[in-house]
Amino acid sequence: MTLRRSCGWQGHRSYGFVCLSSGLIEEERFVKHLRDFHDVFTISGNNSSNTVENVSLQSSLRTPEDRTHAIGEVIKSLGEMIPGIRNELYPVTSSYGMPVYFSLERAAAPYFGIKAYGVHMNGYVEKDGQKFLWIGKRSDVKQTYPGMLDHLVAGGLPYGISCKENIIKECEEEAGIPRSISTNATSVGAISYMDIEGFRYKRDVLFCYDLKLPEDFVPNNEDGEVDSFRLIPVPHAANIIRRTEFFKPNCNLVIIDFLFRHGYIHPDSRGYLNLLQSLRSGDCS
Amino acid sequence: MTLRRSCGWQGHRSYGFVCLSSGLIEEERFVKHLRDFHDVFTISGNNSSNTVENVSLQSSLRTPEDRTHAIGEVIKSLGEMIPGIRNELYPVTSSYGMPVYFSLERAAAPYFGIKAYGVHMNGYVEKDGQKFLWIGKRSDVKQTYPGMLDHLVAGGLPYGISCKENIIKECEEEAGIPRSISTNATSVGAISYMDIEGFRYKRDVLFCYDLKLPEDFVPNNEDGEVDSFRLIPVPHAANIIRRTEFFKPNCNLVIIDFLFRHGYIHPDSRGYLNLLQSLRSGDCS
Repeated sequence: MTLRRSCGWQGHRSYGFVCLSSGLIEEERFVKHLRDFHDVFTISGNNSSNTVENVSLQSSLRTPEDRTHAIGEVIKSLGEMIPGIRNELYPVTSSYGMPVYFSLERAAAPYFGIKAYGVHMNGYVEKDGQKFLWIGKRSDVKQTYPGMLDHLVAGGLPYGISCKENIIKECEEEAGIPRSISTNATSVGAISYMDIEGFRYKRDVLFCYDLKLPEDFVPNNEDGEVDSFRLIPVPHAANIIRRTEFFKPNCNLVIIDFLFRHGYIHPDSRGYLNLLQSLRSGDCS
Repeated sequence: MTLRRSCGWQGHRSYGFVCLSSGLIEEERFVKHLRDFHDVFTISGNNSSNTVENVSLQSSLRTPEDRTHAIGEVIKSLGEMIPGIRNELYPVTSSYGMPVYFSLERAAAPYFGIKAYGVHMNGYVEKDGQKFLWIGKRSDVKQTYPGMLDHLVAGGLPYGISCKENIIKECEEEAGIPRSISTNATSVGAISYMDIEGFRYKRDVLFCYDLKLPEDFVPNNEDGEVDSFRLIPVPHAANIIRRTEFFKPNCNLVIIDFLFRHGYIHPDSRGYLNLLQSLRSGDCS
């Protein structure tokens, strides 16, 4: 229904992706797996150069429910092509808050280059004027980024829940933070990034939150996804980001945003505006 | 020395400005006042269409000091063309922290489209979990924006002083905040904007600071530029911005940034990402 050239992402064709609705699909090896689903996709191309020019959803799929069901069946059929199915539906929109065109399985979003939204929370403590960040270490058996460092609380934003309710829910599940405390979580902005890996075109927008925790609070993971928590001085977290790749990559960005907002990176540091501009130049829509 | 087409601002020619070094000059009425200064500028153009294509500084002006002196003499000669001379020199660089190409009088910066840097500080108080902003009302006899609402502390960034030292100096001069308190001012990011008015092409980058003040602190203007101060609840300040044009325009942006960082504008508000992206899309370099 949407032509490649009308989706505003033409520049990205050079990376080997073509547009589908509000998404992007790897144009050679992944797209061929979609060719059998004639009832779902129309794939057109340039026969002489044998390239795919356009992937669109069949116009017979008239409602969001039709499209959600049809894409859901495709994802099931693709089996191990799309690992890590979570049975969690993500809404597909042109931008945040816009009408939902269809919904699809969270793990499949990057295979269709669908923008995904999440919430990330910096949980911190202030003692004698010094700030400390609560950092989680992901379980070694977690499917994605096992064993890496992580925020105290973070999660994808499922369909039909507000950011604030999602943060409160994740606070409970991931760190055992009761609603009486998590309700103080403060939204502080958003960052975005994209990452291409194999067939996956990850386009994420993360709503960032800060939560100042009581000094004596100790987090307690309730869903088995976190191995341990540690409270570390903010400059220590900054050094881990600068010198290692221990953090799950998107956490780096949210913590760098924290470092800017709390004065740990300041205008008298070399490269201040460059780094700030780079952090904020993503497609936050 | 720098060609118009090499300065990266070609798109702005449509607004009627041509490039000079790191700046922009109104191409018809203002540029003609520079034609007499043969020792300072080379002005070339398209004779058939009678348009100015390029303004450059004479290559005989070899050092920053030579250029600063020559431009200073031009500004003096222009007299009332450039009102509000402050006898405060601004460094001209390609971006913040880069080598100084020359310096020029602060009031003249927008006539030469030179990017200028400043510091703006949100001074706030927290009482029973509610935040209040200290707002100044500019003196009715101030040359620029008389009588308008303003930040507690704000100022241009003169040459050779760090942002932090500048904030501490302005805190003392504008609001009587002693160093023991102002040293806690925290850098929280930067915003930028441009504004074209007549011959002036204003391109500003503002380094933003927050300072949490003691509940009993009362500001006291020491340079006669502020008529009065008032402490108002943050949502009240937000309403003034939404409904009136009482604030000096650039203060609106810095306060909107405060509203984002302190959760007063949150992701569950309509248009959140649009407003955030718009606030952050300026040329912060």
